[in-house]
Amino acid sequence: MTSAPAVIRTIAEIRAALRAYRAEAGATASVGFVPTMGFLHDGHASLIGRSARENGLTVLSIFVNPLQFGPNEDFERYPRDEARDLDVAARAGANIVFMPSVAEMYPTPAATQITVSGVTERLCGASRPGHFDGVGIVVTKLLNVVQPDRAYFGLKDAQQVAVVERMVADLNQPVEIVPCPIVREADGLAMSSRNVYLSADERREALAISRTLAQVPAWIGSGMSAAQLTAAVREGISASPLADIDYVEVLTYPGLQPPASDAALAGSRERIIVAAAVRFGRTRLIDNILISFPEAHI
Amino acid sequence: MTSAPAVIRTIAEIRAALRAYRAEAGATASVGFVPTMGFLHDGHASLIGRSARENGLTVLSIFVNPLQFGPNEDFERYPRDEARDLDVAARAGANIVFMPSVAEMYPTPAATQITVSGVTERLCGASRPGHFDGVGIVVTKLLNVVQPDRAYFGLKDAQQVAVVERMVADLNQPVEIVPCPIVREADGLAMSSRNVYLSADERREALAISRTLAQVPAWIGSGMSAAQLTAAVREGISASPLADIDYVEVLTYPGLQPPASDAALAGSRERIIVAAAVRFGRTRLIDNILISFPEAHI
Repeated sequence: MTSAPAVIRTIAEIRAALRAYRAEAGATASVGFVPTMGFLHDGHASLIGRSARENGLTVLSIFVNPLQFGPNEDFERYPRDEARDLDVAARAGANIVFMPSVAEMYPTPAATQITVSGVTERLCGASRPGHFDGVGIVVTKLLNVVQPDRAYFGLKDAQQVAVVERMVADLNQPVEIVPCPIVREADGLAMSSRNVYLSADERREALAISRTLAQVPAWIGSGMSAAQLTAAVREGISASPLADIDYVEVLTYPGLQPPASDAALAGSRERIIVAAAVRFGRTRLIDNILISFPEAHI
Repeated sequence: MTSAPAVIRTIAEIRAALRAYRAEAGATASVGFVPTMGFLHDGHASLIGRSARENGLTVLSIFVNPLQFGPNEDFERYPRDEARDLDVAARAGANIVFMPSVAEMYPTPAATQITVSGVTERLCGASRPGHFDGVGIVVTKLLNVVQPDRAYFGLKDAQQVAVVERMVADLNQPVEIVPCPIVREADGLAMSSRNVYLSADERREALAISRTLAQVPAWIGSGMSAAQLTAAVREGISASPLADIDYVEVLTYPGLQPPASDAALAGSRERIIVAAAVRFGRTRLIDNILISFPEAHI
């Protein structure tokens, strides 16, 4: 029971389509938005599905945003498969797929920069200078084009969620940000478009990340401090000989500040995130676990 | 035939009021927006009046934005007169006056910064470091709260118009920016809330700015280059013994780049702005003239 979503490539056309929808739906209009870089997997499908359940119209965007890639990152080789993406989008319930070109999104080099401080100095913000400036501008542009009631983001990119939530609050952007749980493969690997880069050996070894993060609640329960937990997670991931750790950090969430490193984390009043970025060969993977007290949840 | 505008002080209430207006007006809804720092004069009234003619509902905001004042500027003593402003707003045709507190606009210090480069390095951007970052964030916040179809800005702050137009284009903010001509006192002084600071002597001498700028079209017609015109304007203003020139610059508009300084400006393909900032005592005044070719207009 799926119908093919409308494929729209220009800002003028999607604005017109959304205007027509809102005029017809009137007071009952509600627009859900799922911004992605495409090469969709079940994690994306879960965001689209939730948006389709919660809104009258769901817009999926597919745009590999050059501004969020560093000069030595994988912008050029980032995986793309438009036909497959449209199939996933249709089955998950998207009504409009917005696939602008780089020239449509950046007709001239953007002179405007959006910088969110405080939540961008650590984790991927430290490893990927400028990355979150690129995220901030593209999310703002897309929100201004789609003007959704709700926008859905996956918590695999937990720092991105924290950055977007802070930006939306600071700028009074009229949208509800809906963070959604990480979706994992059957064996625990967090779903990512970049998993396709992994060789068979790397794919097997990459499980070291999710297996180690799965032990975090027990380690916290045993009374570990942030420093002890960081060391334990590093040690766990390092058990894989192919793992090249970029970072392992234990921080408050969504503020992304270090907790007192010598205090036991158990019973902390703030949520805690344990986040890792690990290279396997040329492929950089990220994963995390969010813990709130007294109950832990992912 | 004026009715008192609704006075609203919170973001939640103005959003509700605008939602109600849009629901009632349906497809014919149109919202015009005039952002100001209050202490309204006939320049502001002309913006409100134009918005009232062009839109179904006109929102005026009055907010003295601390983020666009430098540490040694006049934030604390900036003139405020709520009762008089409400009277001007009513007579000019505003339907809603939005007067948020600083705490309502910045409940926590903004971690998000918006920087527009290329158009902010000269003129007031050079004299007032951080000023246009403050303008960028407050305009973005207000646009996100009001979501107007059109926003009206006076060309006395011509650089502000250029910055806002560039930001709106870069961020795809869904609004039409409407630049409006400078409104002057009968003797030529550009209207400004800060004119109230001037002593009688300063007020008389301040005419040196508008009188000098009025000669610009003739000077350009006589074949002056940008460098010659800059010197002539500096000399004209300096004829007032109380004038303390902050800057006089001749630039392209809205790009705000220097034209070739040794070429005659007449026949230039780009618009030219001649802008000045001049202190009289403690009061800093700005004024400008915009020239397009072949016809000059203010």
